[in-house]
Amino acid sequence: MPSLHRVAVVGAAGFGGAVAARICHRHPSLELTVLTARSDAGRRHDELYPRYRVPLVMEELDPDRLAERADAAIVAYPHGAAAPAVKTLRERGLKVVDLSADFRLGRERYERWYRRHEAPELLDEAVYGLTEAHRDEIREAGLVAAPGCYPTAALLALWPLREHLQDVVVDAKSGVSGAGREATQTTHFVSVTENVEAYKVDGHRHSAELEQELPYGTRFTFVPHLVPVEQGLLASCYVTADIAAGDALDLYREAYEEEPFVELSDEPPGTDEVRETNRCRVHVRAVGDRVVALAAIDNLWKGAAGQAVQDLNLMLGLPETEGLE
Amino acid sequence: MPSLHRVAVVGAAGFGGAVAARICHRHPSLELTVLTARSDAGRRHDELYPRYRVPLVMEELDPDRLAERADAAIVAYPHGAAAPAVKTLRERGLKVVDLSADFRLGRERYERWYRRHEAPELLDEAVYGLTEAHRDEIREAGLVAAPGCYPTAALLALWPLREHLQDVVVDAKSGVSGAGREATQTTHFVSVTENVEAYKVDGHRHSAELEQELPYGTRFTFVPHLVPVEQGLLASCYVTADIAAGDALDLYREAYEEEPFVELSDEPPGTDEVRETNRCRVHVRAVGDRVVALAAIDNLWKGAAGQAVQDLNLMLGLPETEGLE
Amino acid sequence: MPSLHRVAVVGAAGFGGAVAARICHRHPSLELTVLTARSDAGRRHDELYPRYRVPLVMEELDPDRLAERADAAIVAYPHGAAAPAVKTLRERGLKVVDLSADFRLGRERYERWYRRHEAPELLDEAVYGLTEAHRDEIREAGLVAAPGCYPTAALLALWPLREHLQDVVVDAKSGVSGAGREATQTTHFVSVTENVEAYKVDGHRHSAELEQELPYGTRFTFVPHLVPVEQGLLASCYVTADIAAGDALDLYREAYEEEPFVELSDEPPGTDEVRETNRCRVHVRAVGDRVVALAAIDNLWKGAAGQAVQDLNLMLGLPETEGLE
Amino acid sequence: MPSLHRVAVVGAAGFGGAVAARICHRHPSLELTVLTARSDAGRRHDELYPRYRVPLVMEELDPDRLAERADAAIVAYPHGAAAPAVKTLRERGLKVVDLSADFRLGRERYERWYRRHEAPELLDEAVYGLTEAHRDEIREAGLVAAPGCYPTAALLALWPLREHLQDVVVDAKSGVSGAGREATQTTHFVSVTENVEAYKVDGHRHSAELEQELPYGTRFTFVPHLVPVEQGLLASCYVTADIAAGDALDLYREAYEEEPFVELSDEPPGTDEVRETNRCRVHVRAVGDRVVALAAIDNLWKGAAGQAVQDLNLMLGLPETEGLE
Repeated sequence: MPSLHRVAVVGAAGFGGAVAARICHRHPSLELTVLTARSDAGRRHDELYPRYRVPLVMEELDPDRLAERADAAIVAYPHGAAAPAVKTLRERGLKVVDLSADFRLGRERYERWYRRHEAPELLDEAVYGLTEAHRDEIREAGLVAAPGCYPTAALLALWPLREHLQDVVVDAKSGVSGAGREATQTTHFVSVTENVEAYKVDGHRHSAELEQELPYGTRFTFVPHLVPVEQGLLASCYVTADIAAGDALDLYREAYEEEPFVELSDEPPGTDEVRETNRCRVHVRAVGDRVVALAAIDNLWKGAAGQAVQDLNLMLGLPETEGLE
Repeated sequence: MPSLHRVAVVGAAGFGGAVAARICHRHPSLELTVLTARSDAGRRHDELYPRYRVPLVMEELDPDRLAERADAAIVAYPHGAAAPAVKTLRERGLKVVDLSADFRLGRERYERWYRRHEAPELLDEAVYGLTEAHRDEIREAGLVAAPGCYPTAALLALWPLREHLQDVVVDAKSGVSGAGREATQTTHFVSVTENVEAYKVDGHRHSAELEQELPYGTRFTFVPHLVPVEQGLLASCYVTADIAAGDALDLYREAYEEEPFVELSDEPPGTDEVRETNRCRVHVRAVGDRVVALAAIDNLWKGAAGQAVQDLNLMLGLPETEGLE
Repeated sequence: MPSLHRVAVVGAAGFGGAVAARICHRHPSLELTVLTARSDAGRRHDELYPRYRVPLVMEELDPDRLAERADAAIVAYPHGAAAPAVKTLRERGLKVVDLSADFRLGRERYERWYRRHEAPELLDEAVYGLTEAHRDEIREAGLVAAPGCYPTAALLALWPLREHLQDVVVDAKSGVSGAGREATQTTHFVSVTENVEAYKVDGHRHSAELEQELPYGTRFTFVPHLVPVEQGLLASCYVTADIAAGDALDLYREAYEEEPFVELSDEPPGTDEVRETNRCRVHVRAVGDRVVALAAIDNLWKGAAGQAVQDLNLMLGLPETEGLE
Repeated sequence: MPSLHRVAVVGAAGFGGAVAARICHRHPSLELTVLTARSDAGRRHDELYPRYRVPLVMEELDPDRLAERADAAIVAYPHGAAAPAVKTLRERGLKVVDLSADFRLGRERYERWYRRHEAPELLDEAVYGLTEAHRDEIREAGLVAAPGCYPTAALLALWPLREHLQDVVVDAKSGVSGAGREATQTTHFVSVTENVEAYKVDGHRHSAELEQELPYGTRFTFVPHLVPVEQGLLASCYVTADIAAGDALDLYREAYEEEPFVELSDEPPGTDEVRETNRCRVHVRAVGDRVVALAAIDNLWKGAAGQAVQDLNLMLGLPETEGLE
């Protein structure tokens, strides 16, 4: 029996980190050795997340001690806070998958949409972790940036057509866990229930990832919406392409035939079909002279922690699907 | 004090008819004299809908007796069943607002999307009841077809730009009451909760109304989605227009400045802001070279029974907003 | 036409105060002249609560200026903060209904369950505002303490039997608006959805009101639960009484026959039957040798602001139901 | 490697059967060989339940062919329909766990609460499958009746005190999946959302199981409630016992210390803590002279299919927790 890879989850008290902890804890080839948290340090993880049943106590981040006990880490810190944490772990030789935006974008684009970058010297080695798009690079990477939840769904809906896109509208609907664990007016039950609403109409930061990953110059508009759902994200994409509709469908079949986590569905996918799975279900249809491509994911799984483990599997030479079925 | 207009609601057991009954019952210039129902005939309305507090017993439809007791009717029958009922009431001289699709479309278009028309001879006199678009004709009409919920929101989002539309995507999200009172797998709580999904991607019948009301040849795609909300509908419209963005916004201000039920909102409107009101809240913004126009309504109010009463007010010479504030 | 009574809502940004503002604004015999808020001072009320459509700007509380413009006030401050505000308004001659717990209890009981009382000298004049129980005193009162939401429902379920209670279990289920507008882990959508849970099992402070209002020595247990509902509260009461079941039912009929806001229902009432109304629907049934009494209210209406206006109507000599139908 | 036990799920299209299929399909010592359905025969299971990912086609029930391919069966038919199906499978030598009420009760009690029994000759061998209460008999049984969801939670809340119960109120709250997959007015999203309501106040049939399992003569009242939750059930039990509170708590610790699926919790358990698990979380507290015992389960898992597999594990000599972690 091969020895287990020891893994830490840094920032395990938030929603993304908690799912990462849960998946790693049950993963047959990983040993979850360290959980860290900031304000919740000292508490057992299963006290915060009883369903996930991870019996470890969360501790303050101590990079040296962590490096003695882990070979790899999933970092689930907020944007800005992630970069220094990732840097310190990389310096100690750990392979890292980062859930924040800090290593998803080139420096110029990052600083335009977010803030001054805290560890720009790492950007060269960072790989954008949309597994289906960058599998080979991820396999070789020491640092992978797990994509945002919206770009994951939108890009998987669009990827097979990427050479043919002329005009794209992405209307995306996300559950509330995408807004994080912090209690705000936005996440208050009374604000969310019996409500649907768009937000950041003129520029959600996830646009930057679409801009980077789609061919230069693709005209696209992306508008996110909040819906009264806990976990789940649907990206509805409306595409004008320079290819016949029938050919477009062939491209999807070809692209996703062998993908373990992307499924073509004959019917429009519901987010409940993928809840608490790493799957993305895609439905494509030609409607008049437009292609409608719908992709449903669980925003915390394929849209964050699930994809992070999928990437980590590749980085560690493990089967891509291990621990995720 | 002027005498009251006597009004009947035909098909008061369904969601749309029930709201019509509720509004008419409290309307200062209407006297709600008759409610009809099919399988629920004999039951008191407030037994089915306690909150609405309409204490009338629903009866079987008897056109002659109804005509003795009412001057106008709101018909809330399913498509196909409505036409004969409307016909019989028109023959007896009642003014009618019909909530079904039966009189919204020209015959050819109706029969393409729905079925053989049961009363085509009435189509000439029928007016499409989007109040803001056809106010003057409605005032003169004996028969008004209240628009579908999706077209109401989409058209109000697009109307001020209608002469300038080149390409339109309408991504609409509806609450479950839009699917009607019938219990089906689609409306089962377990199917709806924690789920978002598109449906009828390649052709919802409400497309026909958009096609009819938008300028001939406008390229548009309309995809409806179901969200876990009881009442509420958001139409997110993505428009390429032949007009500068700033000018576009002026058109909205101009168009809606005096409208009693359409409000321009500085923020993307949530459906909960209009729940149980006849209002439509519209937010417009130029995003790059596209115009994003969002319209939120209550699908049972402005999207059905509320607009029906708004139309009826005009038909009866009453103030347009009466009974709806 | 009689002149209007001028009324202020102090603390109009919270859920209870917002509903009070909404009701007073539409009340035919009240003129809503002042809204105050603390952190939201300077904002228009309808910006926070668009559906309620109260177009006033909220201001900081300035008792002198307020007293010039209002004859009565509804105070919707948190416990502890309310007492000094009420005191200052009473000193300026306003009639006051207070939504907090500060004037619901005798001093000793208040200080046992809450904190040191800030205005004990007012306790003598304060009347407990369960309208159905204390109507005559309320009519004469200058200061009324609107009951808590749980006690309102539980006491209305139990009141007709109050002389016969031997043993009572109150299992109550409340919607999330009862926890207030503050964003906390408890009110986070992700905590609430797909969840039901009891809280404060060994002593919710509303127990003190039950203890005070039920006959001395009645054995009772009260456990509140949080359910994924926005507005609504159901109190399920399990009673052992020293009276035959049939006689018990007669007591309810007698007690509530003439009550404008309490209805006996043949079926167990759903909270959705009373949403956004001031009604309480009660269902009573003998089950074996126990009496099961169920009462459903809207926690923000009959459980807070609605009952406050019902009380205010009496204090001002207005018809009890005015503005509440 | 030991050979797998071949298992069939009869009635796999309903909610309980579907979860049974899902659990058996992933169970390391079971081979799921047959799924049957009635109106859905011919469809793949993962078409109805994509998340569960069971790729078998459901077939009509053919007992002879089934018996060739399975050693055991979980039957998930409605009450009444189950008995003949169970009989025919027992006659062919299969071990059976039945999810219906048909074998939970003695004949007299069954026929009083349900209907004429279709296979009374099997009642003698049937064991009531509350694992924690009847583990040894289950191990030897050929036919086990999985308890109802309400009795499972209520009995686990009460079991350690069963010798000391004097008076019990069980106020239970269930999610909608407990009402089954059939689309009815009760399960319509619009009926459920924003609503809490009691039902069958004067006698839910699950009372019969409590009556049977609790000591003869225990005075108890059981009232079920429907809450807007998909999966989850909370039983809140209010107990008068003939034992000191401190001793009562000891009884719970003792009873559940070694139970793999029952956990004592320091806090009132939320149903979301056990969603999609076979766990029951119990919280007990002395409140005055009463004991409050709260038990949370997932109604489809520990309340139906999970417990069925727990029982089946015992019947087949497998570790009790296998396939359920």
